[in-house]
Amino acid sequence: MDYTERKVTGKTVFEGHIIQVELDEIALPNGRPAQREVVRHPGGVCVLALDQDAQVTLVRQYRYPMGEHIIELPAGKLDPGEEPSVAARRELEEETGLRAGKLTYLGYLLASPGFCDERLHMFLAQELEHLDSHPDEDEFLDVFTMPYSELLSKVMAGELHDAKSVAITLKTKVLLGL
Amino acid sequence: MDYTERKVTGKTVFEGHIIQVELDEIALPNGRPAQREVVRHPGGVCVLALDQDAQVTLVRQYRYPMGEHIIELPAGKLDPGEEPSVAARRELEEETGLRAGKLTYLGYLLASPGFCDERLHMFLAQELEHLDSHPDEDEFLDVFTMPYSELLSKVMAGELHDAKSVAITLKTKVLLGL
Repeated sequence: MDYTERKVTGKTVFEGHIIQVELDEIALPNGRPAQREVVRHPGGVCVLALDQDAQVTLVRQYRYPMGEHIIELPAGKLDPGEEPSVAARRELEEETGLRAGKLTYLGYLLASPGFCDERLHMFLAQELEHLDSHPDEDEFLDVFTMPYSELLSKVMAGELHDAKSVAITLKTKVLLGL
Repeated sequence: MDYTERKVTGKTVFEGHIIQVELDEIALPNGRPAQREVVRHPGGVCVLALDQDAQVTLVRQYRYPMGEHIIELPAGKLDPGEEPSVAARRELEEETGLRAGKLTYLGYLLASPGFCDERLHMFLAQELEHLDSHPDEDEFLDVFTMPYSELLSKVMAGELHDAKSVAITLKTKVLLGL
């Protein structure tokens, strides 16, 4: 069935550096009015970097919205007009100092399609080369490695929570038969 | 390392029915100032309902932020103070008319921890009983079933994009050895 919701009017209620928030008046499929709160986000990339010894590179950083330090796979926002694969290589190098000889696209995720348009492109990076790390100024994070098998155990035990990291870790298992 | 970011001042820039948006001035670990854009969300639940014949129940609905019809597992927001397992049973019944005899908690996901505090609690529902469906008024969606094996194929082919649905589908595979 076609359940398309038609925009009647709308306004931008917040214009930030990262997100933009819109409040729209819409018509439901039956013509009745409703409101939609929409967060616009530039989208991002997330990379599982798997080396020859089946070690995965992770980052641990403070996530202000949660008020916690969180473990994630290397990730970052897309620059305007940037190709996801270019962003994946850039973020991997910036955060971890790794260059990927082989980069496999694993599709994209919608982080929270009920209110937000964020698309997260997933990549598997292999044939890794260590460069000098060039972390962003004012980016505070720990970079470390863990065997893939241990990462998978943490995902299954509910000890890793970042949605994109969980999805890529599990997708990699099925893809590579790990 | 401790990379805690300290709030200096903050203001609510948007107060919606679903989300609240805050703009905070913070101090980075090195004392330098920065801004954080934060979306507060009540959190939600997502349920993979798997019947005796390994069929999964899915919903297809229009997601306004994407401007597309999207296929997802049954899901919904937590009511204030609601236990995730209560919300999971409620949403499953409301959206699909299924009652779960057995509900297994699969942990929670952080949808987008860089700017949003949304937690998504994942459940596997089994021993299902069909009730009369009671969809919410003004909720427009198609409910249908698909073999679990086909759902997994769609996830692996990159044809299913909702992050929570992808994560639960893959976690269920590893958990049940499907």
